[in-house]
Parts: sequence; C-alpha cells; structure tokens
Amino acid sequence: VTDVRFGSPDRDWSTLDTPALLVDEVTLVENIEAMASRARELGLALRPHVKTHKCVEIARLQIAHGAEGLTVATIGEAEVFASAGFTDLFIAYPVRAQGAKAQRLKDLAAAVALRVGVDSSSSAELLADCLRGTSASLLIEVDSGGSRSGVRTPKEALAVAHGAGDLPVIGVFTHGGHSYREPGQGPAVGAEEGIAVRRVAAALRRGGYPMSVLSTGSTPTAGHAAAGVTEIRPGTYVFNDRLQVGLGSCEIDRVALVVAATVVSRGVDHVVLDAGAKTLSKDLPGVLDGYGAIVGRDRLRIERLYDHHAVVTGPVAELPGLGEVLAVVPNHVCPVVDLDTELVLVPADPEAGIVRWTVDAHSRSR
Amino acid sequence: VTDVRFGSPDRDWSTLDTPALLVDEVTLVENIEAMASRARELGLALRPHVKTHKCVEIARLQIAHGAEGLTVATIGEAEVFASAGFTDLFIAYPVRAQGAKAQRLKDLAAAVALRVGVDSSSSAELLADCLRGTSASLLIEVDSGGSRSGVRTPKEALAVAHGAGDLPVIGVFTHGGHSYREPGQGPAVGAEEGIAVRRVAAALRRGGYPMSVLSTGSTPTAGHAAAGVTEIRPGTYVFNDRLQVGLGSCEIDRVALVVAATVVSRGVDHVVLDAGAKTLSKDLPGVLDGYGAIVGRDRLRIERLYDHHAVVTGPVAELPGLGEVLAVVPNHVCPVVDLDTELVLVPADPEAGIVRWTVDAHSRSR
Repeated sequence: VTDVRFGSPDRDWSTLDTPALLVDEVTLVENIEAMASRARELGLALRPHVKTHKCVEIARLQIAHGAEGLTVATIGEAEVFASAGFTDLFIAYPVRAQGAKAQRLKDLAAAVALRVGVDSSSSAELLADCLRGTSASLLIEVDSGGSRSGVRTPKEALAVAHGAGDLPVIGVFTHGGHSYREPGQGPAVGAEEGIAVRRVAAALRRGGYPMSVLSTGSTPTAGHAAAGVTEIRPGTYVFNDRLQVGLGSCEIDRVALVVAATVVSRGVDHVVLDAGAKTLSKDLPGVLDGYGAIVGRDRLRIERLYDHHAVVTGPVAELPGLGEVLAVVPNHVCPVVDLDTELVLVPADPEAGIVRWTVDAHSRSR
Repeated sequence: VTDVRFGSPDRDWSTLDTPALLVDEVTLVENIEAMASRARELGLALRPHVKTHKCVEIARLQIAHGAEGLTVATIGEAEVFASAGFTDLFIAYPVRAQGAKAQRLKDLAAAVALRVGVDSSSSAELLADCLRGTSASLLIEVDSGGSRSGVRTPKEALAVAHGAGDLPVIGVFTHGGHSYREPGQGPAVGAEEGIAVRRVAAALRRGGYPMSVLSTGSTPTAGHAAAGVTEIRPGTYVFNDRLQVGLGSCEIDRVALVVAATVVSRGVDHVVLDAGAKTLSKDLPGVLDGYGAIVGRDRLRIERLYDHHAVVTGPVAELPGLGEVLAVVPNHVCPVVDLDTELVLVPADPEAGIVRWTVDAHSRSR
C-alpha cells in the first residue's frame, strides 16, 4: 500500500490532532465523477447511498455531478439531508412505521419527495396508514442472494403490494450484499441483482403496478448493472477502503480517506497508535488480515484493537518512532466515518488551508 | 439469559423508537453502590473510568457514592467532564502533548486537578514542556502483562521520570487487560497488577519520587486489588455486558444496559433486527458466540451484522414476529454507548416517565 495520497507529500502532519479522518479532495472528486460517468454510460439514474459519508458537502458534490437523488439507511439520516435542502430521498431499508417513527415519516413526506423500502405486507399496511395522502411512494425490496432482507418470490411481492393499498408502489430494489463475500464477484452478483428485480417487477407489472424504478447496486456491482435496471445506489465508492481494494472493486490509488494516527507508545516488539476500536471499528472481513493497512509500511500489521489503542507489530527495525503520524487505510470505511464528527479535507495545493467538513448524519441510526 | 430487567415487565415497549440503549436505573445504582462499597472495604480510592458511560449524570452518581475523581481515556473526554464541573481528572493513557493537544492540555490543567499518564521519556519531555508551572502531575504507566502500553522495567520507569524534569511524578498505574483473555482471570491478574506497580513504584521511591498513587484496575480485577495498591479504576461495572458475564466478573442480573431493537424483516429461517454494526459494534470476543445475547431467547443467535441490520437465526418456531421489540445484551458495552447519543433511563416505577440522558462525551476520541 503506497499509492494512497493524502494531500501533497510535502505537507507536514506532525501538528495534526489525531486520530483524524483525512480526505484527499482530488481523489474524492475523481471518484464521484467516475461513478457519475459510468451511470451515464449505462443510461442509469445514480442515487448514491450517503450512509458512507453522511456529509452534506459531499452529497452536494454528488448531486452537482448528476446524481438524481440520495439513498439513506434510516429515518434519522433522511431528516438530516432533508433539513439540508435535499428534496429527493429514498430510505432503502425495510422500514417499520411503528411508534415515534410513524410521525417522523409523515413529517418527512411533507417536506421531500420520499421513497420508502418495504418487504412485508405487515410493514406495508403500517406505511399505508401513516403515509396515505402524502406524496410518498414505496419500493419493494427483493432478496437477490444476500439472505438478509427482501422478498424471495413474486408471490410475496404481490402480497406486499396488496398490503400497501392505495399508497403507490413504484418499483423494486435490491442490494447484492453477497458481492462482499469474496473477491471478483461484482459482475456475477450484478447479473443476479438484475435477474431478481426483473423477475419480481414483471409479476408486479402483470398485477397492475407500474414499476418505473428497478434499483440495484453496491460499490462492487454498480458498474455491472444488468439490462432492465433503471437506477444504481453505490455508497462506498466516494472513499473506497481496504475491503473494496481486496474485493477488486478498485485500485489502491482510488482510496480517498485515511485515518491519521500518532505513535503514542513503543514496546519491545510493537508500537501503539492512538486509533483504536472507537476510530477504526472492529470490522474484520474474512478476506483481510489485521484492522487496517498502514500506508507505506506493508510489513506492519494492526494486530489488536482496544477502545483507543491499536497494537501494531512487524519487523522491529521497521517499527515507527514515537510521535510519527501514520496513515491507515480502514478495512470498512462506513463505520469509521460514523465514529467521527468531522472529515479533514486535504486540498491538492499544499499551500491551501485545511477545510473541515461535518459528518452531519453522524450517529443517526434511528 | 433471562434475569435482565429493563424496567418493569409491565412496561409497553412497542412504541419505542429503536434501536435504543435502555438503562435499568435500579441495577445501575446498585452496581455503582456495590463497587463503591468494595473499594471502601479494601481501603482504596475509587476513580471510575467514564469511557464506558461518557455520561455526566452517571459520573455524578459515582461521585455521590464516594468516587474520588474520574478516569478518562482522551483529552476530549477530559474536556467534556471538566466543562461539566468535575475537578479531578486522570487521563489514563500514554498522552503525546503534540500539535493541538499541547494547548488543550494546558487549558485543562488550568481548569482542573489534572493527572496525565506517560510511558516514555520522549512523551514525558513533551508533557514537561507543556505543563511546567501548572498543577498537573504525571503517573507512569506500567505493563503488568497486557503487552499494550506501559514500561516493563524499573529502569525504564526511572528514565521516564527523569524525562519529566520538574513536573511532579506522583505514582504509577496499570491496566491488566489480559484479564479479558479468558474467564476467571480476575484474581490472578489482580495479583499481577499489584506486583507490577509495587516493583516499579519501589524503584521510583528509591530514586526520590514520592509515589502517593499506585493505581490498578479493570472490572474483572477491581475487586481483587493487591496489597500496596491505593486506587482502582474500573469502568464497565456500571452497566456490565455479555463479556463480563462470560468472564465471570458478574452474574447476568447485574447487566444494566440492553439494546432495544425491533424485528423489521422476516425470512424463511431468520429475522432482521434494526440494531446493526453501527449500534452493536462488531466486537466479538473469542469467548462469545454471536454479536449479542437476546434476552429470553437463548436459542436465537445474532449471526451477521451489517451497518443497520442484524441477521438472527434459530429454530423457526421461536423466531419473533415482525414489530416485536427485543432486548439485546451487547458483547462489549463501551463501543455501543459511544455509537449512540443518548441513554434511555428506565425507572423502577412502571408509572414513572422515561428520562433521557445524553452521552455527553460521545465520539470524543481525540
């Protein structure tokens, strides 16, 4: 891991308050542009998932480059982006309009064009009770092989649509999460996503539902959307991470976010960085070894994490010195961003000042 | 797992906005009282680690029950508790007074009685430069077998103390983190903590340093402090968690915090809860199976976590229905609290209203 920029190599990081999330502006914008181009090439609407960055400034860049609307995971994320002026939001989650969530959904539907995910007739009935008479519409989630949420058969989908009553059901969506299980699955899982949504959408069309949206996507599959798909919803591509590189979704030079961490302690055969589990998270996908990759230090391994300590081992001669600031490529960037409150944006020009962007939807898991 | 209360069994949770962290007030207060009593019995000062709860209200309860001061992990946590009026804080971490942190430490030392951890002469020199002339003092960290941070020999400790120059070195501290590696290690590791701090403190005393504080502790070892120790710093005991039960530190009825989660989706052989990795964290200690224990549902297993989905498997007849609100005992409570912004305090009286406490030091990892 060497080809990761975090700003100019001439910039001095020794005064940075760590742990900190550094975002390379050039790579970020290039990643946003590249996915927007790919969607245009494929003739697809792009509705990026903002749970990766949770940042209004980055969502604005995505819209400026042609994204049609935003995807969110929770009502809480939708509220943050609605307040910031985004008008077209899709909660790609099997939402239960239960308790306080019913009124929150109603308020959202009054403020923005709202699409809501659903995968059971019971949840569809609750949503219909809550959103009837608003401009909100539903998309039915389909399981394309991830074995998480989503209906498995056209029959189930028709029951869900029936449960929605007069609330419009405008499409179907899936997330091929099994593209994360081993490297190189993007094309195959992209095809499976297409088959799954086409099959269910065809049955719903025959049942009288218009089906204007067939939405798929994850970062590994986004560039491989199949015929019939109308929309993709990748999220991680803005920053990428060690897992995306490991899966073959991108090259290492497409990583736009690193965790800057300081060496705070040295043992006989290890050093301690100040980025622990409350910064890097304990996400450890099966295809990776250790809790992150240290840029330019391929023989070092992040062996153990405590709340605020990362224990790093490797050849003693290569262990960094006390006070050195290292850049760590996180295994999975989404939980890492959720653990901090700000992103430190590093401009290309080493003379230009650092800008801090708020993680606006930080901790909005409800 | 059945003996976990979260308020009265008569309380209706179906309207709760989930995922949410529920704290049983009775158990919380009993846990705080019990540790305070144990410290008094042993003749020890209690300086609880607040990184577990990060909550000013809970820290006030700890002080009201006789805690002498607070332990924090980061300068950011210290700032929050200093602002809330706490006057005696110990940053039990190998602090580097580098970059912005130097001025932040100076400001803290002007506001409160500040103790700072250190384990290298290089860091001691930086701290001396920054804190000279303030009322701050240093404690040298000793490695008692956890192989994380801390000096290993009296000779190293003397070099650190020398690096501190005229900044007072008032004691030594250790955290026997290896008490977490397998069940039943509390007494043995408590003894090792005692041996480690006594050995280093004796050498420092001979070197002319007064050594008024010998501080040890974790929740497994806190009740087993050895002779010579003057202070314990447990943190997790306020809430406890599945790991503490698994290690034998406490019984299941001492768990005071559960994650309330709603069943949002049902598959053929699994259900999905709305508490994912951004709520439960992916902490999976080797002695546990699955990402948490569901209260009253011992045959269910939290098999996979995604950002906002927990996939739960088990005998099909026992899978809960859509909309049911379940209580999950988290594996490790510290990262879970850090992922939310509030605690829902459940009073013993089922008629009494719910109170919400802020996680004041949420995300203060710098």
